[in-house]
Amino acid sequence: MNSIQLNKQGHLKHFLGIEGLKRALLIEILDTAASFISVSEKAVKKAPLLRGKTIINLFFEHSTRTRTTFELAAKRLSADVLNFNISTSSSSKGENLIDMLRNLEAMHCDMFIVRHNAAGAPHFMAQHVAPHISIINAGDGQHEHPTQAMLDMYTIRQHKGEFAPLRVAIVGDILHSRVARSNIHALTTLGVSEVRVVGPKTLMPKGIEALGTQVFHNLKAGLRQVDVIIMLRLQRERMQGALLPSAHEYFQYYGLTEEALKVAHPDAIVMHPGPINRGVEIDSSIADCKRSVILQQVSNGIAVRMAVMAKTLGTVSEQKGTQ
Amino acid sequence: MNSIQLNKQGHLKHFLGIEGLKRALLIEILDTAASFISVSEKAVKKAPLLRGKTIINLFFEHSTRTRTTFELAAKRLSADVLNFNISTSSSSKGENLIDMLRNLEAMHCDMFIVRHNAAGAPHFMAQHVAPHISIINAGDGQHEHPTQAMLDMYTIRQHKGEFAPLRVAIVGDILHSRVARSNIHALTTLGVSEVRVVGPKTLMPKGIEALGTQVFHNLKAGLRQVDVIIMLRLQRERMQGALLPSAHEYFQYYGLTEEALKVAHPDAIVMHPGPINRGVEIDSSIADCKRSVILQQVSNGIAVRMAVMAKTLGTVSEQKGTQ
Amino acid sequence: MNSIQLNKQGHLKHFLGIEGLKRALLIEILDTAASFISVSEKAVKKAPLLRGKTIINLFFEHSTRTRTTFELAAKRLSADVLNFNISTSSSSKGENLIDMLRNLEAMHCDMFIVRHNAAGAPHFMAQHVAPHISIINAGDGQHEHPTQAMLDMYTIRQHKGEFAPLRVAIVGDILHSRVARSNIHALTTLGVSEVRVVGPKTLMPKGIEALGTQVFHNLKAGLRQVDVIIMLRLQRERMQGALLPSAHEYFQYYGLTEEALKVAHPDAIVMHPGPINRGVEIDSSIADCKRSVILQQVSNGIAVRMAVMAKTLGTVSEQKGTQ
Repeated sequence: MNSIQLNKQGHLKHFLGIEGLKRALLIEILDTAASFISVSEKAVKKAPLLRGKTIINLFFEHSTRTRTTFELAAKRLSADVLNFNISTSSSSKGENLIDMLRNLEAMHCDMFIVRHNAAGAPHFMAQHVAPHISIINAGDGQHEHPTQAMLDMYTIRQHKGEFAPLRVAIVGDILHSRVARSNIHALTTLGVSEVRVVGPKTLMPKGIEALGTQVFHNLKAGLRQVDVIIMLRLQRERMQGALLPSAHEYFQYYGLTEEALKVAHPDAIVMHPGPINRGVEIDSSIADCKRSVILQQVSNGIAVRMAVMAKTLGTVSEQKGTQ
Repeated sequence: MNSIQLNKQGHLKHFLGIEGLKRALLIEILDTAASFISVSEKAVKKAPLLRGKTIINLFFEHSTRTRTTFELAAKRLSADVLNFNISTSSSSKGENLIDMLRNLEAMHCDMFIVRHNAAGAPHFMAQHVAPHISIINAGDGQHEHPTQAMLDMYTIRQHKGEFAPLRVAIVGDILHSRVARSNIHALTTLGVSEVRVVGPKTLMPKGIEALGTQVFHNLKAGLRQVDVIIMLRLQRERMQGALLPSAHEYFQYYGLTEEALKVAHPDAIVMHPGPINRGVEIDSSIADCKRSVILQQVSNGIAVRMAVMAKTLGTVSEQKGTQ
Repeated sequence: MNSIQLNKQGHLKHFLGIEGLKRALLIEILDTAASFISVSEKAVKKAPLLRGKTIINLFFEHSTRTRTTFELAAKRLSADVLNFNISTSSSSKGENLIDMLRNLEAMHCDMFIVRHNAAGAPHFMAQHVAPHISIINAGDGQHEHPTQAMLDMYTIRQHKGEFAPLRVAIVGDILHSRVARSNIHALTTLGVSEVRVVGPKTLMPKGIEALGTQVFHNLKAGLRQVDVIIMLRLQRERMQGALLPSAHEYFQYYGLTEEALKVAHPDAIVMHPGPINRGVEIDSSIADCKRSVILQQVSNGIAVRMAVMAKTLGTVSEQKGTQ
């Protein structure tokens, strides 16, 4: 996937997934994001980098929250933003995906932020789109959610400094989670000491060890001495199938409580991609405690998305990460 | 409510309701609005006061019209605006209100314009929101609609000059009307001579006299010699309950007609918060006659909302009203 | 219709239909559009011509695609844009159309882009709107779609230079097509040599010859030696009535294939207003071939809409077309 994400000069052109990207590039994105944090903290939250650019939020899967963070990132970079909420049923009926792309290209759009329930849809679009356009994956099926992973990495670096010594646990429904997948790739690429995945057997993909992770089915065993805990959101619809018992029972075994947190490193931080289900995957008091950095993740998400947008459109210096 | 609406310096921080605000502050808002009228009349309808601010329309109750006036006010002040239409059913299912607030705060939003069917929702949000954020009430249940009251006061002052000598009648469904409630507070605070409420017994709240009003159940008696008539919109759904007979019968007793208008002062102005139901609460010819200032209310609404936005975010001088 | 579209100085005030407009004015619009093409090709796609103007997309009939091109055109001219999607059922229930207009006028809006399923709705609005406001017809019933016609003319001139020598065929459901109607008026006004309409008898309006067209029911006869082919979109709902057999059978008789295209002039261009139904009105390979200028139409559409917006609001020189 590396080849399609980078242009001939090796600079980021599309941002489709973490898999295959080099450590230096991830660090470069984090460093660029650091330079954008201040934009959202100023009285006038505007940088002119994407002025006169047209950015389209192409959401084939509904998400007010993720769309909002991309929209704010784009507007704070002074871009024009249009939101398209497309039901996949209607898009299959009418124009096909390629025809839709060609039309938006002809309108001189510069970037598509794509969320789709089919894994690979953003990659497919990147393969077919005109050369001047960038595609950003805002979540595709159970594949990747790379901006979420980068904002998670940003938040970890902010609190822990170096990646190398860290033990990180990702807890919950690993099987269906594009957040887990992108985070595993990011953490291993950035060279953390240990990546653990923790969850019930029914929600653990076969062969996940091959990605460089250690598998735990017992929460306390998985959390022992970790520096970072990434809780995943439990999709409630999973519980209607055979994969899970009740929310109550899930919480008993895999919910993050004060009790469970005790076995982690005393300085461990608690993360969650949001929105949280209080009392399902995380105890309400833990979500609000000092070790929770969940809201900092949200803030960092804006800066990380600004960085990815500015880098793919080539409006920030490409030497940032290597200076 | 005064304490939460004002900051320690006594300046407007949130705008949740008219009740409890001082006369000087209301006059200050009207004077600031006066300075914004010209912005919407220029060829380039832009003032840079809120450039780089992020304003979120949080509408838990649908209203294209009110949302539009806030959106235009914000855009003419150069702010970035995002619209969230949230069904209360879905918001109860997913994130709770506080979690939603925390997330939007973390995205460095500056202001929430809130419409909610529950009285007190904006007040609750103001109590829990981060200190740098302002909340504007765009209508909460049957409680208050303070920007509507201020645009009504602006329109009255525009036509009548002084408040002190005025007799004002508010006509219609007083019981369910947040507009009536906010207007009663504004009129009594600004010191008009008489505030009358006119309507059938079934639509008149018990003890409304305690707010400084006189109650009339006969339209002509209520309109006799008044200088200002504020008609309320009749929610048609009331007629399906036991509270009201047919629209036709309501119009016979409480509809504003040429005949009824004769008893008012010859210079009386006719107001309505819109959208009007022609032939239900107001005769079509009266809505369009020279004494109707209904459309001026709409124009003034933009300037008043600009004033409230600029004042709560502290981007206009606070001495305006006291000079 | 001429009188209402032009102001007293003879300049374009509203853009409601092609019918009745003079050749010089159409050329003027094309020339202005030519000057806007470069805006969408620059790195910073912004011209300040409509800064501080408020433009409302009033779409009583849903169309993401057309609305998007108007929205992009407006944003690239630096206007503020608001989108209203209004279901005609709800608009009939609540405010009437005139009251809606008066309210938007009072909010100091400058332009309404109107799409409506009733022929004449934009014309009706232009008759009743305040003098400073411009109305643009974005498609009304089976009447006109004038900006589509102008982008088609732009595309034809781009490829063919002069209009006079051209033979043009419009193919498909002429009866229900506002695109056909506007194009016929534009082509005859611009003085092409021949306008042919080609389609089955059930989809051919009676008396269409009176507009200066030649009628063909046989596709190959209609395409013989033409320089320009304008395919119309087939509304699939027509096939559920008695007007049409299956999509498959329609394609056999009226679908544009390589075989059918052979009889046209070797340099003939193929146009379509989009979105195309591949394999229904046009063969997929023809839609993508070198003679297809369908995507150029989309690009030109932005520039043409910018031109119409800037001209009706009087922010570009009116002498453009006559220099």
